[in-house]
Amino acid sequence: MKAASVDDPLKPVLRIDFPSAGRLGRGKIELMEHIRETGSISAAGRAMDMSYRRAWLLVSELNRMFAQRCVESQRGGQKGGGAALTAFGEELLQRFRAMEQQLQRALEADLAWLAAHRAVEGAPSPIRSNDAS
Amino acid sequence: MKAASVDDPLKPVLRIDFPSAGRLGRGKIELMEHIRETGSISAAGRAMDMSYRRAWLLVSELNRMFAQRCVESQRGGQKGGGAALTAFGEELLQRFRAMEQQLQRALEADLAWLAAHRAVEGAPSPIRSNDAS
Repeated sequence: MKAASVDDPLKPVLRIDFPSAGRLGRGKIELMEHIRETGSISAAGRAMDMSYRRAWLLVSELNRMFAQRCVESQRGGQKGGGAALTAFGEELLQRFRAMEQQLQRALEADLAWLAAHRAVEGAPSPIRSNDAS
Repeated sequence: MKAASVDDPLKPVLRIDFPSAGRLGRGKIELMEHIRETGSISAAGRAMDMSYRRAWLLVSELNRMFAQRCVESQRGGQKGGGAALTAFGEELLQRFRAMEQQLQRALEADLAWLAAHRAVEGAPSPIRSNDAS
């Protein structure tokens, strides 16, 4: 993984607070993407350097936030049970990603303003004598 | 303070990640508002149940994120020094609050969708026998 640099663009991050029921943000959304890809809560957790317990708790919280389940899982079986997104989970995932894109567009001018006023560390000095050696 | 309820509206929360330089979000923005109001970093911290050290670190991080300082402070003096927003800090504050409003507007339809699919805890059962006792 590349280290963060002051040259990297500013990144707006969206989170939705559900009063008394938790938060919906990058963590749960990425976990759902990994579940879709791996078919397993534990593999999805591993892909995010997360314990099985932590991944399971996030899935459980996600399922309790909505009237419909987002992730379905079976315990047991040859591979320790599988997990998959429900149709609702899939819709939620796509909608959240679309919201992030909309956010980026809506805030474009403000992000440009912030970027223009951001501290520049380690940037070359704007005036530099020509080194002829 | 009122306890959070499942009846409270969903709240989109904005944060801007500055790669290698920290995050700009509710905490720093509220702290700036309290500094504007109280004229003091320690009083602003107290208003947010935050230690002076924590408040001071957030101000320091904020000042290092931008090419211009957001908060100016003096040590010493009769009241232990005061603090105030710079013109740039004031502009940043107002812009962030405007960004939050823009976010709310841009995501209005999605927030309504999320709210419509949210779990309803403790709601009365839709079908209920009439208790005549």
